[in-house]
Amino acid sequence: MDYRKEFVVNPRKKLKLARIDPVQSGGHASNEAAQPEITKYVTRMAELQALLYANADQSLLVVLQALDAAGKDGVVRHLFSGMNPQGTSVFGFKQPSAAEAAHDFLWRAHQRTPGKGEVVVFNRSHYEDVLVVRVHGLVPESVWSKRYALINDFEKLLTENGTRILKFFLHISPEEQLERFKQRLDDPARNWKISESDYSERELWPQYVEAYEEALVKTSTAHAPWYVIPANHKWFRNLATSQIIAETMEEMKLKLPPTRVDLEDVRRKYHAAAAAQEKRNGKG
Amino acid sequence: MDYRKEFVVNPRKKLKLARIDPVQSGGHASNEAAQPEITKYVTRMAELQALLYANADQSLLVVLQALDAAGKDGVVRHLFSGMNPQGTSVFGFKQPSAAEAAHDFLWRAHQRTPGKGEVVVFNRSHYEDVLVVRVHGLVPESVWSKRYALINDFEKLLTENGTRILKFFLHISPEEQLERFKQRLDDPARNWKISESDYSERELWPQYVEAYEEALVKTSTAHAPWYVIPANHKWFRNLATSQIIAETMEEMKLKLPPTRVDLEDVRRKYHAAAAAQEKRNGKG
Repeated sequence: MDYRKEFVVNPRKKLKLARIDPVQSGGHASNEAAQPEITKYVTRMAELQALLYANADQSLLVVLQALDAAGKDGVVRHLFSGMNPQGTSVFGFKQPSAAEAAHDFLWRAHQRTPGKGEVVVFNRSHYEDVLVVRVHGLVPESVWSKRYALINDFEKLLTENGTRILKFFLHISPEEQLERFKQRLDDPARNWKISESDYSERELWPQYVEAYEEALVKTSTAHAPWYVIPANHKWFRNLATSQIIAETMEEMKLKLPPTRVDLEDVRRKYHAAAAAQEKRNGKG
Repeated sequence: MDYRKEFVVNPRKKLKLARIDPVQSGGHASNEAAQPEITKYVTRMAELQALLYANADQSLLVVLQALDAAGKDGVVRHLFSGMNPQGTSVFGFKQPSAAEAAHDFLWRAHQRTPGKGEVVVFNRSHYEDVLVVRVHGLVPESVWSKRYALINDFEKLLTENGTRILKFFLHISPEEQLERFKQRLDDPARNWKISESDYSERELWPQYVEAYEEALVKTSTAHAPWYVIPANHKWFRNLATSQIIAETMEEMKLKLPPTRVDLEDVRRKYHAAAAAQEKRNGKG
């Protein structure tokens, strides 16, 4: 199945998340059945990242957004651990620092965008400024409602400089979130992950859905599309996301970099160095 | 074998790199024989990184230095790919930018040091300012010779803030370097890695050895030790380095973070949320 077509957010259509089944699994029966495909895409992502890094003329930005416990950290761990850490960075966006808060809302995101050859993952992102900020009324509507256009302009700027942008909303059901909260409670090894705000944020679910529905439609562009990934099944989430990333990277037409030197000249230098080495060894 | 004891640079003893055999392999017969141990240490590094990140009260800085083709990139790829990229960063130090060159030599390194919970790898580092800078005479001796003490002070500052520092010099023979240069020439897929400066830098080998010998002795401290890793065998380089990193991380006494919430209170919230969910589902 072509998950890019299947899950992309159409900017010309009203989005109702309730109509997208978070339990779907693209016809795959189980984790075991999907695993070979996941491995194929994750391996390909790593191969293409090596070429991206070697060429250093394009870059990739992956944005992950979701409600709590939907699996942002899981996507990072499962899909990006295979990439070479040289050239791959992950940034988690938290409460802005005082210096960050003193600037426009895109300032801190801009500092973390990928340089040429790099892959950067935003675990949360500048989208929080039209999500949590809206839901909690941290700025008035007159401010956050202007941000969609500002975000589109910002992402256009990055694209014009050779950055491919992919944005994923990991879509789980409230029942699945509750189940994952329960696992954090029941497993002592996960108790530390529990945060005071888990349940109070959950009560704002409808408000978050409303904020996401508007944000996703208004900022899903040809140059920086949003995908809604059914994420109740962690393995299906990994499958769909890895396919979309790998196939987008294929489109970047990454090849081995050209040789930057005169090979004949280097060959001569090599032979001279080898002769000198032999002479030194003979003396030694 | 305890490679920390074996390969640490003693600051009170003259270092002669020529006396350290780069071909040694700690009694292991082959890559295959060493692989289970490498896997064990790399796996342990990843486990401990997860705890380091979760606790966010200490950090780890790994410095990699070597002559060309000695395997810095290989160490990054083999030992750090297993770590969660969320919390693990690698910085490659190149020619300083104009802004970097306008500041003291530690300014750019300082900006890239690990925050609490993070692992950072320096692929090349602030040590270039007593190595390439010295060998090419980019600043006078009166300047670079003062830098050893400045580096020790800087690393002390990081240590006092909870950062463990490990520094590795990957030690290969000139013959092995030449062999690796040859592979880059013979394999079209590696041609692009050839740089104009490979052979001219190689001619400065004795000057680099002299610079390394002085730098390693003068900056191998109890809080930030240098290790000279025999690196002609790539697998032995990976084995020794991974053992040293894993055992140092063991000493950091990383445990599961404490639970930050009142579990009884959270359990009550969970049951309330579950009841509310059931009610909503009943209505639906």
